[in-house]
Amino acid sequence: MKLGLDIMGGDYAPKTTVGGAVEAFKVLPKEVKLVLFGDEGQILSLLKEHGVSADNFEIVHTTEVIEMAESPLKAVSQKPNSSIGVGFRYLKEKKIDAFASNGNTGAMMVGALYSVKAIDGVSRPCLITQVPMENGKTGILLDVGSNADCRPEMLCQFALLGQVYTKYICNTPDPKVGLLNIGEEEEKGNIVAQATHQLLKNHDGINFIGNVEARDLFDGNADVIVCEGFVGNVVLKEAEAFYKLIKRRKIEDPYFDRFNYELHGGSPILGVNSNVLVGHGISNEIATKNLILLAKNMVETGVTEKIQKAFSGNKWQ
Amino acid sequence: MKLGLDIMGGDYAPKTTVGGAVEAFKVLPKEVKLVLFGDEGQILSLLKEHGVSADNFEIVHTTEVIEMAESPLKAVSQKPNSSIGVGFRYLKEKKIDAFASNGNTGAMMVGALYSVKAIDGVSRPCLITQVPMENGKTGILLDVGSNADCRPEMLCQFALLGQVYTKYICNTPDPKVGLLNIGEEEEKGNIVAQATHQLLKNHDGINFIGNVEARDLFDGNADVIVCEGFVGNVVLKEAEAFYKLIKRRKIEDPYFDRFNYELHGGSPILGVNSNVLVGHGISNEIATKNLILLAKNMVETGVTEKIQKAFSGNKWQ
Repeated sequence: MKLGLDIMGGDYAPKTTVGGAVEAFKVLPKEVKLVLFGDEGQILSLLKEHGVSADNFEIVHTTEVIEMAESPLKAVSQKPNSSIGVGFRYLKEKKIDAFASNGNTGAMMVGALYSVKAIDGVSRPCLITQVPMENGKTGILLDVGSNADCRPEMLCQFALLGQVYTKYICNTPDPKVGLLNIGEEEEKGNIVAQATHQLLKNHDGINFIGNVEARDLFDGNADVIVCEGFVGNVVLKEAEAFYKLIKRRKIEDPYFDRFNYELHGGSPILGVNSNVLVGHGISNEIATKNLILLAKNMVETGVTEKIQKAFSGNKWQ
Repeated sequence: MKLGLDIMGGDYAPKTTVGGAVEAFKVLPKEVKLVLFGDEGQILSLLKEHGVSADNFEIVHTTEVIEMAESPLKAVSQKPNSSIGVGFRYLKEKKIDAFASNGNTGAMMVGALYSVKAIDGVSRPCLITQVPMENGKTGILLDVGSNADCRPEMLCQFALLGQVYTKYICNTPDPKVGLLNIGEEEEKGNIVAQATHQLLKNHDGINFIGNVEARDLFDGNADVIVCEGFVGNVVLKEAEAFYKLIKRRKIEDPYFDRFNYELHGGSPILGVNSNVLVGHGISNEIATKNLILLAKNMVETGVTEKIQKAFSGNKWQ
């Protein structure tokens, strides 16, 4: 297994990305090789600082960097020799099994769509966030930002993507799907939510339990919660606001510790034909290590292939 | 000053509504009279239990009740002798200066629109929630549920409504308006947010400071945060979820105590030609008392008249 990491992406790259790669290397089995995309000189020098031999990694020297604030489409097309550009070339040619970056999320999305492409039947790939449930389980919320405005069919696709992902990655045998809404009754909500409710209710392939209100988000009744990217991103960031308040107010609580983004590392881009992962821009070494471990988990479980199978020849197309 | 209270509305009515009226009576000055709409027999019996003379109140006997789950439009038109129906008749005829209920929110909205009507220039009245800022200030978020889908012009009207309300009720001399969005840059967001940003930016009457991300919701940079009712309701209920978790995990913290709905009592329906307030369905005596005190504050400050003035003859129409 070969896992690719963009060394140049992220607010504190390449220091934290090389550091995260080193931390991951320490715990990964021998048969997993990390492939580092970035400036070779900087990578070698940082590995030396860590006292870890460069022989333990495969280094692919790249000469360009896509910055965090760059326009994704332009950056990907104009910087083919960037760490993100070369990484996706390797992914497309199956020289690596997964590609992860803490860099420009939009560029990662564009790169994925242009190289490995969306899975047949998936209109718009999406990003997820993990939801720590108070009962100890972990659920997911999707989309959390890549598709601000959605059509109801897209939310149904998110439901199926999330259902397969949760089954294999969160070890939930029969995941339950909820629709984020502002009331329990099926006629509640905005136009998109109302229409989505009907589609979800009438689809045999979805284990739909109905609407979920945000006040019950952490109760664990639903394992997969679907919503438009605008509202999902707001929910994710409001949780960050509370986590920030809890830390700033020096409240110690093991449940709230699970809201620490470092633990999850990042989010896969679900719905593309390979394993693509995006970390938080502010990721440190621990977050980067966990992003790599999530990539390994995705390759091992074959979750992307399971998703391709779930979408093949079904009525989602 | 006469403040009307629907005694029959709410999950624990009439016990908690009469109890709340008694608590409010104890702190209100003599010149403020509470007018109680509901079943006279029940009201008299409950006042007796509290050991408070019925002479301290004006009781308006009503014979019908609009239940929490009833269809608002149907209920208001078919139950003219309900406590809500009669209350709005009194409000329209200026026999009371404000009308408050813990009952069916939709029926309160319909009742307000049919009796005192929307202010000229306000397309859709809305509900607010108070946002406890970590710096000690209190901001507001609107709309939080009465208008799930909004047009950009409606969000601009919310901005003006919120600006006037915050100035007079939250004692913020020059309130700053933010647009809830999923990024700081003006091109970020869904279609409604993108269009709203341009309208807010170009309106002289709005003190617009730009987009506010949910992760900065409690930082106090914006005093008025506008959004569509769907997302606002999700934000409000996610805050409830966190407050619920904090209480259940027995975390004591004075800042988080400010998220207790009892303190605010409820929300005004902003944008109608009188003072109309809606409490939480689960309201207890303390919440009901605070709802009445908010009604008094609205009458005293003349906030509704200030809003009428702000909308009169301006380009919002």
